[in-house]
Amino acid sequence: MRNELDQLRSRMAEITDLRNTAHLLEWDQQTMMPPRGGASRAESIATLERIRHDMFVSAETGRLLDAAAGELDGADSASDDAALVRVVRRRWDKARRVPTELAAEIARAGSIGQEAWVRARANNDFDAFAPYLTRNLELARRYVDCFDTFDCPYDVLLDDFDPGMATADVTRLFDELKAALVPVIGEVAQHADRVDDGPLHGTFPVERQRQLVFEVVERMGFDRAGWRIDDAVHPFATGLGSQDVRITTRWDEHFFASALFSAMHECGHGLYEAGIDSSLQRTPLGSGESLSVHESQSRMWENMVGRGRAFSGVLAPRIAELFGGSVADLDATSLYRAVNRVEPSHIRVEADEATYGLHIVLRFELEQEMIEGRLPVAEVPEAWDARFKEYFGLEVPDPAHGALQDVHWSAGLIGYFPTYALGNLIAGQLWEKAHADMPDLEAAIGAGELSGLREWLRENVHRHGAKFSTPELLQRVVGHPIEVAPFVRYLRAKLSDVYELDLP
Amino acid sequence: MRNELDQLRSRMAEITDLRNTAHLLEWDQQTMMPPRGGASRAESIATLERIRHDMFVSAETGRLLDAAAGELDGADSASDDAALVRVVRRRWDKARRVPTELAAEIARAGSIGQEAWVRARANNDFDAFAPYLTRNLELARRYVDCFDTFDCPYDVLLDDFDPGMATADVTRLFDELKAALVPVIGEVAQHADRVDDGPLHGTFPVERQRQLVFEVVERMGFDRAGWRIDDAVHPFATGLGSQDVRITTRWDEHFFASALFSAMHECGHGLYEAGIDSSLQRTPLGSGESLSVHESQSRMWENMVGRGRAFSGVLAPRIAELFGGSVADLDATSLYRAVNRVEPSHIRVEADEATYGLHIVLRFELEQEMIEGRLPVAEVPEAWDARFKEYFGLEVPDPAHGALQDVHWSAGLIGYFPTYALGNLIAGQLWEKAHADMPDLEAAIGAGELSGLREWLRENVHRHGAKFSTPELLQRVVGHPIEVAPFVRYLRAKLSDVYELDLP
Repeated sequence: MRNELDQLRSRMAEITDLRNTAHLLEWDQQTMMPPRGGASRAESIATLERIRHDMFVSAETGRLLDAAAGELDGADSASDDAALVRVVRRRWDKARRVPTELAAEIARAGSIGQEAWVRARANNDFDAFAPYLTRNLELARRYVDCFDTFDCPYDVLLDDFDPGMATADVTRLFDELKAALVPVIGEVAQHADRVDDGPLHGTFPVERQRQLVFEVVERMGFDRAGWRIDDAVHPFATGLGSQDVRITTRWDEHFFASALFSAMHECGHGLYEAGIDSSLQRTPLGSGESLSVHESQSRMWENMVGRGRAFSGVLAPRIAELFGGSVADLDATSLYRAVNRVEPSHIRVEADEATYGLHIVLRFELEQEMIEGRLPVAEVPEAWDARFKEYFGLEVPDPAHGALQDVHWSAGLIGYFPTYALGNLIAGQLWEKAHADMPDLEAAIGAGELSGLREWLRENVHRHGAKFSTPELLQRVVGHPIEVAPFVRYLRAKLSDVYELDLP
Repeated sequence: MRNELDQLRSRMAEITDLRNTAHLLEWDQQTMMPPRGGASRAESIATLERIRHDMFVSAETGRLLDAAAGELDGADSASDDAALVRVVRRRWDKARRVPTELAAEIARAGSIGQEAWVRARANNDFDAFAPYLTRNLELARRYVDCFDTFDCPYDVLLDDFDPGMATADVTRLFDELKAALVPVIGEVAQHADRVDDGPLHGTFPVERQRQLVFEVVERMGFDRAGWRIDDAVHPFATGLGSQDVRITTRWDEHFFASALFSAMHECGHGLYEAGIDSSLQRTPLGSGESLSVHESQSRMWENMVGRGRAFSGVLAPRIAELFGGSVADLDATSLYRAVNRVEPSHIRVEADEATYGLHIVLRFELEQEMIEGRLPVAEVPEAWDARFKEYFGLEVPDPAHGALQDVHWSAGLIGYFPTYALGNLIAGQLWEKAHADMPDLEAAIGAGELSGLREWLRENVHRHGAKFSTPELLQRVVGHPIEVAPFVRYLRAKLSDVYELDLP
């Protein structure tokens, strides 16, 4: 008899339904909604969040948690039931400190902010965006003020995206990453002329790109019966349960790599959501645990598979065939080298794997300064541009190539960026382990056969959803918490290959 | 000081947000959702309805209604505030008799039923659909059982779509309509050879049809900044507030009239939603009052404008230009006569205006028999086919051309069909009045200028939303409750013109 646990499950099922509904409201806003729908949409998103938050933080949820924990006494701590109680307890403890009106206002401001960002970015007008960022920061500070259990303001935010991860941990990992990468970037820079990314630039009709993208994501596991792919200003993925996964991409007629690799990235997220065990559906365990693990999936598919030597052998002939013209003779090695060219550039989502981390460090630093009130919003572009010059040696030509390029701040997602770089590190760990478990993995990828990797990831990562904390999951799969070395080993080997070097 | 009224408004604003959200869940299900998403979608729809229903029927809503009514003492009964209290009171009195679990289950079953209907219709398999219709009827009967304040079971259902309208009223109106139309249909049938609908059939590339449809709906008032148009198995329109209106259509490469007139129909619905006064947004007054008035808008734009002589002069040259080939020489009169050809046919949404009413009568009768338990679901196809033979003189070749053709029963919408024919009657009244008010209306339509009619409708009908009951609205606009004669006058005149007859 597990009456209280069943009741807890019912309550969480409804809350999951509301979360799926919120995902649809957000997905639709970014892909389908006519522009004038924004005001009404923000109200709907706020109301849904108000109701969801109220239901979740209610005393009744607390009572059910206590009672369910009692019923569980002696149950395997790795069981679905034990994980459910553990995860809901942690989230409830955090959420109930937040007033419902604040939760709703954060949701409303995020929705309104995104609409403003789309316009501001199109007009290259940071000033038009500034009031929305100011509002999101005010709300984020009020959110932070709800807690006295964290070491610093940024910890509160980071913990929402990677539970248990602290700013100090991230700083340590990023310092180690920087120390490892800076000499690699320096060495590569001296041989910049060895790698030509010319093949990526030209004229590539969008309809042909669409065909290429479909072929690739279908190899990965995209399935029209349970997925969609659409266009968005800023590509993203979302799930309305594992049977309704939605990814997006954007198209650049003169640079096919943009749509292709962002689609692989988002499809990597989608495979995670689609791979979660059906027993966890309609529970809070039915989506990925941390965004760091989520980004490990997207970054692995985008970079380790998509920009790997093996898969370049699959992509190159199709690219040659589909586009002809300037890439009619494209071979695997030329493609492989082109997509791995290391060069400081302005746009994070198009950055190479070596400089990518610096984009994240820049945002991680600015976010801490903003949330602590040390950097006023009006000075963000100036600070961005100065820091960019320092890290990348480049001038920022306009806000669309600088502080306005990402959607996150507009949506109130402050503390999210570090998870991309943490995801790279986790991807490095999983990639090594996958190769150890499957010695023929590269050969399979080279033959265009991606299901082996997907099923390995499903078995080891996806199916568990949010059952395990990130450290627990890593311990189970690779026997070690998050670390920098495997990613650096992977990247050094790849760049040695690409640049014909023996990197330090 | 109107504190309680403000609180009532706030509560209704949230409930309206949930309604808009439910509209999005339904719109997405029918236009975008991947097939496997159906199970999860049904749960989300049910949960949202459970919450909305609970919030709405709560004692707190009743308390606010009483208190707000007190604050209103002496206010103009035609004011927004008075209308809000009146409409919410009526809906609250009805809704609170319905258990929340039943309301949620009706929503869930309707969502699941629609998915089943799409498959069953594609496979022409009524038996596969029967369990879902059985379930929807069971739930509809349980819903009916919540009330002891109506004369017959069907009254309860009808009242949801046309508040205050009774089955006996509909029967009387339909009898009068039938008595007027049967001799017209008989007379026309003797001259069937006078009208040729050949021009409507041929090969019409969908992309060209899309262009035609866009041009036409944009003339009507469709505006990309606040509207969308998409494809659906069964065309429909929905609104997420007046600034986010979504219509759908479907395409037949061999019959352009299908997409064109269904788009005009749905755009007519959309104009109603888009035209509601902004002061009524986020209130229950912010959408059309009865579906009969709603259908009067869609049917007027589809038939009185779209299939009118004046607008045929606008359509014919564009059709000739866009499609060429078999319609390269299409003239206005040929088009006008073709689209008004009277002929018994199987599909309601493609029926001519004279026989259309019989399609509705057939459904109105079968629905009463089903809801009263006199017609078992298993016997529905047989009953449909027999009744169809009796009314139309035609055999039904398969369920997709018979009992499976409409989405309504699958979605639990029983009692909806009569509003189409009632909408025709109201359209007849409004059409006469619009012409009396605007003597140059036909000339304007003939010049492709539709804004005069749209603004007349906005001023007289749309902007009021649900402020007035249908009889009140008609009284205000045409000075008379719903009646049959104007529609019959309109149709007789049109068919006399089309068939070169002097009809009785």
